[in-house]
Amino acid sequence: MDLATLIQVARGTIPADLLLTNARVLDLYGHDIVEADLAIAGGRIAGLAPSGEYRGREVHDLAGQYVAPGLIDAHVHIESAMVTVPEFARAVVPRGTTTVIADPHEIANVLGMTGIRYMLDASKYNPLSVFLMASSCVPAGPLESSGAQLTAYDLESLLQDKWVLGLAEMMDYPGVLAATDEVLAKLGTAGARPIDGHAPGVRGLDLNAYVASGIGSDHECTTREEAQEKVSRGMVIMIREATGARNLADLLPLVTPHTARRFLFCTDDRTPVHLLEDGHIDAMVRQAIALGLDPLTAFQLASLNTAEYFSLRDRGAIGPGKRADLMVFDDLQSPRAHAVYRGGRLVAKNGTLLPYERPLRSPALPVSLNVRRTGLQFRIPAEGTRVRVIDIIPNQIKTTASVADAPIAAGEVVADPSRDLLKLAVIERHTGSGRMGVGLVRGFALTVGALASTVAHDAHNIIVTGCSDEAMRAAVELLLEMRGGLVAVAGRDAVRLPLPIAGLMSDQPIGTVAEQLRILLAMARRMGCPLADPFMTLSFLALSVIPELKLTDHGLVDVTQGRIVPLFVN
Amino acid sequence: MDLATLIQVARGTIPADLLLTNARVLDLYGHDIVEADLAIAGGRIAGLAPSGEYRGREVHDLAGQYVAPGLIDAHVHIESAMVTVPEFARAVVPRGTTTVIADPHEIANVLGMTGIRYMLDASKYNPLSVFLMASSCVPAGPLESSGAQLTAYDLESLLQDKWVLGLAEMMDYPGVLAATDEVLAKLGTAGARPIDGHAPGVRGLDLNAYVASGIGSDHECTTREEAQEKVSRGMVIMIREATGARNLADLLPLVTPHTARRFLFCTDDRTPVHLLEDGHIDAMVRQAIALGLDPLTAFQLASLNTAEYFSLRDRGAIGPGKRADLMVFDDLQSPRAHAVYRGGRLVAKNGTLLPYERPLRSPALPVSLNVRRTGLQFRIPAEGTRVRVIDIIPNQIKTTASVADAPIAAGEVVADPSRDLLKLAVIERHTGSGRMGVGLVRGFALTVGALASTVAHDAHNIIVTGCSDEAMRAAVELLLEMRGGLVAVAGRDAVRLPLPIAGLMSDQPIGTVAEQLRILLAMARRMGCPLADPFMTLSFLALSVIPELKLTDHGLVDVTQGRIVPLFVN
Repeated sequence: MDLATLIQVARGTIPADLLLTNARVLDLYGHDIVEADLAIAGGRIAGLAPSGEYRGREVHDLAGQYVAPGLIDAHVHIESAMVTVPEFARAVVPRGTTTVIADPHEIANVLGMTGIRYMLDASKYNPLSVFLMASSCVPAGPLESSGAQLTAYDLESLLQDKWVLGLAEMMDYPGVLAATDEVLAKLGTAGARPIDGHAPGVRGLDLNAYVASGIGSDHECTTREEAQEKVSRGMVIMIREATGARNLADLLPLVTPHTARRFLFCTDDRTPVHLLEDGHIDAMVRQAIALGLDPLTAFQLASLNTAEYFSLRDRGAIGPGKRADLMVFDDLQSPRAHAVYRGGRLVAKNGTLLPYERPLRSPALPVSLNVRRTGLQFRIPAEGTRVRVIDIIPNQIKTTASVADAPIAAGEVVADPSRDLLKLAVIERHTGSGRMGVGLVRGFALTVGALASTVAHDAHNIIVTGCSDEAMRAAVELLLEMRGGLVAVAGRDAVRLPLPIAGLMSDQPIGTVAEQLRILLAMARRMGCPLADPFMTLSFLALSVIPELKLTDHGLVDVTQGRIVPLFVN
Repeated sequence: MDLATLIQVARGTIPADLLLTNARVLDLYGHDIVEADLAIAGGRIAGLAPSGEYRGREVHDLAGQYVAPGLIDAHVHIESAMVTVPEFARAVVPRGTTTVIADPHEIANVLGMTGIRYMLDASKYNPLSVFLMASSCVPAGPLESSGAQLTAYDLESLLQDKWVLGLAEMMDYPGVLAATDEVLAKLGTAGARPIDGHAPGVRGLDLNAYVASGIGSDHECTTREEAQEKVSRGMVIMIREATGARNLADLLPLVTPHTARRFLFCTDDRTPVHLLEDGHIDAMVRQAIALGLDPLTAFQLASLNTAEYFSLRDRGAIGPGKRADLMVFDDLQSPRAHAVYRGGRLVAKNGTLLPYERPLRSPALPVSLNVRRTGLQFRIPAEGTRVRVIDIIPNQIKTTASVADAPIAAGEVVADPSRDLLKLAVIERHTGSGRMGVGLVRGFALTVGALASTVAHDAHNIIVTGCSDEAMRAAVELLLEMRGGLVAVAGRDAVRLPLPIAGLMSDQPIGTVAEQLRILLAMARRMGCPLADPFMTLSFLALSVIPELKLTDHGLVDVTQGRIVPLFVN
C-alpha cells in the first residue's frame, strides 16, 4: 500500500479494503468516545467518518461495540510464560494485545546472542508485534554463573536491528551509581533510544544519579511514595502486575488526569496459568477500571502512553495513518475482546486466535544442560553447629536471613523437614564445571520429596530443594532426562513439566503447559507446600541481586554485602 | 562534562558547578511545586534535593522564587521579527525562552539554501537553542515568483543537519490531498521525524487524508470545533498567538487536564514591537493563566509538550540529566522572568540579556534586489470600466474580492483616494525579470503618499501601494536605495526601516528596529491609514495561497480558483 492510495481511501475517492461500521471509537487523544465508521486500507486506518461516508470492499458491522487501539505490554519476559513466542501470542492476542516490548534476558543468560536471535526469529510472522529491548545485565551479577555474558559490543550490534528499540532494564544500579566503565559503555550504546530502569527502592540522591544517567523508566516501584518521587524526577512508571509481583492497586491512586501520561502498564513475568485464567494487559485495564480509573485513561496507559514512550509513532491510538491494530469489546466497564484486528486483519475472535500461516522455523538451539550425573551429591560435612538459613517471605522474591542449629546426622548437615529446614542446591549447568552451592532454606514446608527446576533467575542454573539428598538427586536426574523443566518428586511419584527450549520454554501449546503446571502445583501442595507457586519462589532463590540471602553455584550470597558468606557461622 | 562526573555530582560526592538554593521548582511531570535545591554540573541538572544535601562551587540563593524549565516556541519565523537571530535572542531570552523551533521559509523564498544556511550559521553561539524545520513549501504556490525553489533533494540534505528536526509546515494541502509526486517525495524525506502541518479549515475526509499522510501538527486552527476535530484525529495543536493571528483565547477552552498533552504554544510571526512590548511565549503563559488555565499546565504547553513532540529529550522539564535551561520568576499567576539560565549559565537578568562572546560571523549574503529603476511604472491602460478590487479585512490575512467602477483619467486607471481605491503593485525582485502585477486595493485609506515593502509573503517580492504612481515610484526607489525594507513616503517626507539582510531583516539592534517600526506606523497613521499595522497587512496581499483575491507579480490571483484573473471584468 503506497501513501497515495491511503490518501485516496481517506478522501473516500476509492473504497477501503475493510470498513468497520457502527463503531464506538475510543478517542484517546480527545478523551472522548466517537461514533464512527473506520476505513482501513493497507493495514492502516485511513480515516474515521460518520456513517455512510466511506465504502469498503469488505464490511464488518460492529453494531455499536467499542473499539480501542490494540493493547501494548511495555515490559515482559516472554520466557516466564514457559512457551514459545507463537504460543505466547496465542494467549495474549485474543485478549487484545497486539504489541509487546520484550526483554529476552532469561534466554540470554542461558544462550547469549544465540538465544536473543532465536527470540527475534521466533517473533516474526505471528499476529503480534514483538519488539525487543537489548538485555543490559547478562549476567545479573558477578556472584552467579550464567551461560553467557553480553558486553557493550553485543548490545551495540543488537541495537542495529529494527525490532530492537533500546536498552532493557538496567538492573545493575550499583554499577550505575559507581559509574563503572562497563555500565557507562552499555548506557552509551543507546544513543537517543529509550533505556529502561530497574531500581527497587532507589531514592534521594541515588535516584537523581540513576536518572541523570539517562534511564527513563522504572517498573519496580512498590509504594506510592517511591513512584511519586520517580515520576517527579522524570521517570515513566511502568505499573507492573506480574504473577509474583502485583503493584497496580498500590500505585493506581497516583494516576490523575494531570499525571496519567507518565504511567504505563506492563506484566513483566506471568505464568501460563495466569495468562490463560486472568488475561494480559486487558486484565490490568479491567482491574484499573474496577479500582475507579476512568476507562479512557486506563486504555491510555495500555496503549498510547506506551507507544509514545517507545516512539512507536504508528500505533497507540486510532487515527488516520495509524496501524489498524484494534480491540473490539462491548462492556466499557469491564472490557473483554470479542474481536481483535491486527494490521487490518481479523486475527482473533471470541477469545480464540484464528489460524494463520507462518514459515516453518527450526530453532536448532544448542543443548543447554551440561551436567554430569556422577557429580550429583549434596553432602555437607558438619564443620560447625550453627548455620545460615534462607527464610522465604511468601509471595515475595526477597528473602530474609536467619541462623539456626544445624540438623546433623553422622557428621553431616541434613534436611530436617520437621523443622521446615530443607536442603537447597544450585548446580551450574552451562559449562559442565561441576560447581555447586548447597545451603538450607525454610518456608517450602515439604514433608516429602523434592522440587527442582532449570528456571532459576537470572543465570538459570539448576535449582533443587528437598527433604533428602536422594529425593534431590532423583529430581535433578529427571530434569536432565527431560532436557530441562520443572519437576516434583515424592517417592515413586513424579510430575514433570519439560522445558526443552533452553530449559526455560516448552515446545507444547500453552494450554498444555498451563495444565501441566496446574498438576505440578497440586503435587507440590500434596507434598506439604503452602506457597501459591513454589516453583516461582524457587526460581528467585538464586538471584544474587535481590536481598537478603540467596544461593548460587558459588555458595550463599549476602546480597547487601555483595559477597559469598560461609554456611557455618561458628 | 562526562556522565561519570554528572553521576558523582548527582550523588553529592563532588560539589556542583552551580547550586540554586531555596527554589520552588515547577514539577511538570508530577504536576506539583517542589521546594528544593538544584545542583547543576556541565550545563545539566544533576539533581534536586532538600536544602542542605548538595554543595556547589557557586551558589545562587533564589530565596523562594519559582523555577520553570526554559520556554520553547514550537513554531516561529524569526524573520518576522525583522532582526538577525542574535537580536531575536536578545528579545526573547530575557523573557524565559531558551529554545525555538524556527521555520526559515521567509529567507528561503528569497535566497534558498543559501538563506537557510545563513540562518543555521546565525543561530550558533547565541544563548538560545535554535532548531530549524526544513521549509517544505518554497515557493508557496505556482502563481508567485520566489527567489528559490526547494525540492525534496534540498530537504533531504537539510535533514542531515543535527539542528534540523523535521519538515516545516506543509502548506500545500491541495498537493497533499491530490497526492502529487512532488509533495509525496517531500513528505518521504522526513522518515520518522516530525512533519508540521498548516491546514486552515481542512476538515472531514480531507482532514483524514492530510493526517494519514503523516503530518503531525497544525497551528492554523481558529475555531474550537476545528481544533477539536484535529486533536481527535491525532494532531498536536500548536496554539498560535502571532501579531496578526491570535488564537489563544478561542482555543484555550479545549485544554483540559485530560487533553493538555496534545497542545503546544507557538508565536509564528511577531513584530519586534510586539516582542519587546508584550513578550514571547511568556506572554502566552500569562494570558493562558489569566484566562483560567492552571499555571503548571500553562508551563507544560510552553515547554514539556513541545519538547516531547519534537523528541527533544534533553529539555522541557526540570529533572536529573536535563539541560539546565531555567526561567526564574516570583509571581505564579503572572510569570515574568527575573533571571534566565541556559545550559547552567545565567544569561539574562531583570529583562536584559547579559553580554556573551560570539565568534564574528560575516554573512556575505548575495544582494537580493534585482530590479531596474527604468521599469518602474505602474500605468494601467483602461481596457474596461469595471475592475476587480482587493478588499482588506482589518487584522486578518484573508481578503475579499469585489468589483468597482474603475477610476479613469486620460485613458488610464488611476488611484482614487477619495473612494479608498489605491493602486497596488508587486514587482518581481529576485531575477530582474521586470515582471510586475498591478491592481487596486481598498482598506488602506491613505490620503497621500505610498507604502512599500520588500517583506511580502511568501515570495517577498516588492509590494507597494499608494495614492499616485509618482508616490509609489518614489517609495520603491527608496527601497532599492536601502537594499530592502519598509518605507512610507508622503511628498518630501519619508520614513524608512532598512532591512538589508535579504530585504527581510535589519542589521541593527532590535530596540532600534522596533523604534523605527513605531515611527513608520505613526507616519502611516498620519497618512490616513486606520489599520493597526498596515505593513503586516500589505505583506500578506501577495500570498497566493490565502483566499480570496491576491496580487502577485503574475497579476491578480483568485485563490479559490487557483488561477490568474484579469483586472477588468467587462
